[in-house]
Amino acid sequence: MPLLVVGSIALDSVETPAKRRDDVLGGSAVFFSYAASFFSSVRLVGAVGEDWPAEHTRLLTARGIDTTGLHTVPGGKTFRWRGKYLPNMNDRETLEVHLNVLETFEPVLSPEFRKAKFLFLANGTPALQMRVLEQVEKPLLTVADTMDLWINIQRDDLLRLLTRIDGLVLNDSEAKLLAGDENLVRAGNAVRRMGPKFVILKKGEHGAMFFGPDETYVLPAFPTPDVVDPTGAGDSFAGGMMGYLAEQGRFEPRTLKEAMAYGIVVASFTVEDFSLFRLQQIDRAQINRRMELYRQMMSF
Amino acid sequence: MPLLVVGSIALDSVETPAKRRDDVLGGSAVFFSYAASFFSSVRLVGAVGEDWPAEHTRLLTARGIDTTGLHTVPGGKTFRWRGKYLPNMNDRETLEVHLNVLETFEPVLSPEFRKAKFLFLANGTPALQMRVLEQVEKPLLTVADTMDLWINIQRDDLLRLLTRIDGLVLNDSEAKLLAGDENLVRAGNAVRRMGPKFVILKKGEHGAMFFGPDETYVLPAFPTPDVVDPTGAGDSFAGGMMGYLAEQGRFEPRTLKEAMAYGIVVASFTVEDFSLFRLQQIDRAQINRRMELYRQMMSF
Repeated sequence: MPLLVVGSIALDSVETPAKRRDDVLGGSAVFFSYAASFFSSVRLVGAVGEDWPAEHTRLLTARGIDTTGLHTVPGGKTFRWRGKYLPNMNDRETLEVHLNVLETFEPVLSPEFRKAKFLFLANGTPALQMRVLEQVEKPLLTVADTMDLWINIQRDDLLRLLTRIDGLVLNDSEAKLLAGDENLVRAGNAVRRMGPKFVILKKGEHGAMFFGPDETYVLPAFPTPDVVDPTGAGDSFAGGMMGYLAEQGRFEPRTLKEAMAYGIVVASFTVEDFSLFRLQQIDRAQINRRMELYRQMMSF
Repeated sequence: MPLLVVGSIALDSVETPAKRRDDVLGGSAVFFSYAASFFSSVRLVGAVGEDWPAEHTRLLTARGIDTTGLHTVPGGKTFRWRGKYLPNMNDRETLEVHLNVLETFEPVLSPEFRKAKFLFLANGTPALQMRVLEQVEKPLLTVADTMDLWINIQRDDLLRLLTRIDGLVLNDSEAKLLAGDENLVRAGNAVRRMGPKFVILKKGEHGAMFFGPDETYVLPAFPTPDVVDPTGAGDSFAGGMMGYLAEQGRFEPRTLKEAMAYGIVVASFTVEDFSLFRLQQIDRAQINRRMELYRQMMSF
């Protein structure tokens, strides 16, 4: 079933203790779409500037991603992020952010895109996420991401959004902030009581936790020794998960858990190189093989 | 099969953001023995002072723990630790340590104890752990714990010990320190190459990672919402694991993984109250029920 994502498209400059890359393809909607494209057809909505290299669009369309919702702002510049990872490769510092075209971007969905059944609202202001949600006619499943900035400065908008979505994906530290509770299990449940049917906490190298009406569980990260750049891991996780759900066309508890596992596996590839470099080298068969290893890892 | 543990016996004073308890029963060998006692018979070796309440010994013997190796030092005082947990309940500050009888304790095993087949060397100086190991005649499985202090100040002794043991259990941060690598997967493998056949990294609320000759895997912590006091979680984990292995009388990969899962489940009870309070309320049937939940949590 059609999967729609609205989010950022970026040119990232990333420094890690070992290496550095400038102006590589990034952004939440990009990582999400590419990860989801291994499972289902994806419709991407976002804005770029005139500096956007056409080859990046070609890379996405080559994966079957529908880029007709990619809006080029005349005279605009693409969103840029520069960050630096600390030696533990989990914590990072943002060195520069240039919102550029994102400052004024107001997504307008085409009639076809409004019919999407699976919707992912990647990180953005809760008010903007709400305006996108309102354009989609009858989504079967709506999942949103958020971040500490909106929890701090647009909390009311966020709380309104939470009553309108099915699922929320956020980092563990953000859940603690939103719930005002340092215990992850209590924090996850508290966020769920704010509206969404399920909440997924991303714990970076420690995996992800699921909170639903009837169950709470943790799935660990796939233990890859080759962590080169964690940028995009969370969005790839969400992309793998939503892509699998859209492919299956359902999201009952068992499928949701499998989908989370696929998300974890895809994210474990993403972090093995900068940008989409590692994802560009793999196919569904490799994902399935790693999924099988992951399944064995946890069976006893 | 008989399981022997040598380690500390303590009176702990613990402050958490919510509550505080003074002079409660603690120590690595105590948490270990009690956790292991749900699975197998345990022989405990350690030293206490004349201030040691006899009721603590009775608590242990009531669980079938052989306390004939509990040595009361004439005129001595029991080891005391005072600590305070930060609001995240993972990080803690040590406020006071009084080694007392541990300063001069030199374990001498009885002829019967020397025949132990499963041996756990709880945290202590690597030289002392080695002297205990040398007294055990033909152990089938020897596992040791260690800590950052010995990695920093007795590294050579520790490296010698690592060539003599089958398994090492340590915290994730300690593995990074010992291996000089911030990536957990690489660090775990590097420690394994220092000698032990397997290495288990304890990640607190994030579970534990196993590194063996043929496999690496992660098992998440059981997500309990009721974390009251994490003290003793690591030693309870080791106790549940070694107790199960001693009960089964074998430690091939599949049994090792099951044993780790039992250790994780027992530790999830330990943290639900101070000292041994929560473990005193449960039985093997409750452990098995939570184990079944844990198994379901990770099957998809």
